[in-house]
Amino acid sequence: MTEIVVGIDIGGTNTVIGLVNRSGECIVESTISTQNHANLNTFIEAISNRIKALHHQIGIDNYVLQGIGIGAPNGSFNLGAIVDAPNLDWKGSLPICKLITAHTNLPSVVTNDANAAALGEMLFGGAQGMTDFIVITLGTGLGSGIVSNGKLVIGHDGFAGELGHTVAEINGRICGCGNRGCLETYASATGIKRTVFMLLAQSNKASSLRSVSFEGLTSKMVTEAAIQGDSIALDSFEYTGKILGTKLADVVTLFSPEAIFFFGGVAKAGNFIIEPTKRYMEEFMFPVFRNKVQLLPSKLDGNAAVIGAAALIWQEIK
Amino acid sequence: MTEIVVGIDIGGTNTVIGLVNRSGECIVESTISTQNHANLNTFIEAISNRIKALHHQIGIDNYVLQGIGIGAPNGSFNLGAIVDAPNLDWKGSLPICKLITAHTNLPSVVTNDANAAALGEMLFGGAQGMTDFIVITLGTGLGSGIVSNGKLVIGHDGFAGELGHTVAEINGRICGCGNRGCLETYASATGIKRTVFMLLAQSNKASSLRSVSFEGLTSKMVTEAAIQGDSIALDSFEYTGKILGTKLADVVTLFSPEAIFFFGGVAKAGNFIIEPTKRYMEEFMFPVFRNKVQLLPSKLDGNAAVIGAAALIWQEIK
Repeated sequence: MTEIVVGIDIGGTNTVIGLVNRSGECIVESTISTQNHANLNTFIEAISNRIKALHHQIGIDNYVLQGIGIGAPNGSFNLGAIVDAPNLDWKGSLPICKLITAHTNLPSVVTNDANAAALGEMLFGGAQGMTDFIVITLGTGLGSGIVSNGKLVIGHDGFAGELGHTVAEINGRICGCGNRGCLETYASATGIKRTVFMLLAQSNKASSLRSVSFEGLTSKMVTEAAIQGDSIALDSFEYTGKILGTKLADVVTLFSPEAIFFFGGVAKAGNFIIEPTKRYMEEFMFPVFRNKVQLLPSKLDGNAAVIGAAALIWQEIK
Repeated sequence: MTEIVVGIDIGGTNTVIGLVNRSGECIVESTISTQNHANLNTFIEAISNRIKALHHQIGIDNYVLQGIGIGAPNGSFNLGAIVDAPNLDWKGSLPICKLITAHTNLPSVVTNDANAAALGEMLFGGAQGMTDFIVITLGTGLGSGIVSNGKLVIGHDGFAGELGHTVAEINGRICGCGNRGCLETYASATGIKRTVFMLLAQSNKASSLRSVSFEGLTSKMVTEAAIQGDSIALDSFEYTGKILGTKLADVVTLFSPEAIFFFGGVAKAGNFIIEPTKRYMEEFMFPVFRNKVQLLPSKLDGNAAVIGAAALIWQEIK
């Protein structure tokens, strides 16, 4: 009998469920819709049924399930709940661990998706052997998982590590959280779009991006324009890198990490975003830390969120 | 035989040496000059001799020394050294733990003074029972000791937790560290002086502070002027509180502490500085944290730095 755990990545649109072994290999995975469930209970039931189906698929006589790790936006480790997630159908505090354990008889834990990615990086990715590092997920928003002294920084209420909601500019861009000027309104796929449109408005430079609507624009299109030498696209990465680099300088001065890993869609822009980010980070950071911190791509593959959630429960039951 | 440890607070001018019991009580203490020693070795010798004298004073038959904790600017726990401290006579990396252990045959550890204060607060002060909190020392500069998951955040090189050197204003005031716009150039005794002089230059308001030179001005004088209703003094605390509060909002969003403790000379300005700091902190922090974080005065008495250094070695040898 091989021991195995369940890793679940709950997103606004889809929920991915995978069975992951002690080496961090996702043996089998499956996706269900997060939307169009009658209520939270039927959603949990759908997850539980899919777990059982996957377990049967790989053989219940060969594998024994040990627990369930869940990564979700606004997941609180301390509460075992998802609290006021902006992109889920159910509001308030959702006691997801209690519900899923009741359905499956397996221990379960939840944390936010970026924290799960950080644990995945530590147990199975590029941060193996590191005690102090940070994982930044650059997607629609900016998530962060911070590890200090070998443990996730979750704070006294379980919600710490929200780099995306530190203040990049006082009275700056409106953020979905209700504040203004949050880092993720600049350094994220949405943030880069906003920057492109700001630069298109401010300058007279020719740009292939002038023919695209705000809704039509993707960060991938900005990267492709940058590859063609489009100066609005290049300027938008420079602008983003300055803001992200300045905030990373603060983060390094506070946490002194060995490395910062980047994961997610925008991270695929590679050096267009990493080079200016590193340049400004080095310029603004406390001199004692200069040229010591590596900015690296995540070493987890496409299943990172599921593997990270699995890492969370492996760590709990070990 | 009662077990006892040595707590040492090395400052630029004076070094305070105290013998501290398991309850955090400083039984006896003594001060030597940090300056005018022929070399580092004679300084260490002077410390060792004073430890022996204090031990004899309380009775070597009644008390047994267990170890030595040292708090010092730029003290590195990992290296057991003081590295490039700006206000000490000796430059480079000073292997203080190795030297003092060689002289005394006692185990020794070093950390920076604000980290020591945080440990003191945790073991013997207002942070007893807390796993996530921050201590900010407001003096000539701004020091910080950050505790997450019950452990000091020191980072992978031992130098983390330097809130005073996060960037409060890009291209802002020149800092002693070589950067510009560091938080401590605004939120500290020196920072408040600089703010008073900036406001005296910018406004035409009458102020008792117009008769004082930069060198003659102290933060205590600014507090006394504020008590008299001096509007430059009041404005300077408002300005300082806005900058400090904004940065604390970031710190809360990253660490989610249960409380932030203030210690040191400027903290004595009390609500003149705490009220605007809290107001702006609440305004700019990630909404999920609002009205949850206490700003409190340190509960350690005048010996805080010595007691904190003692807490450090008690924690190591327990």
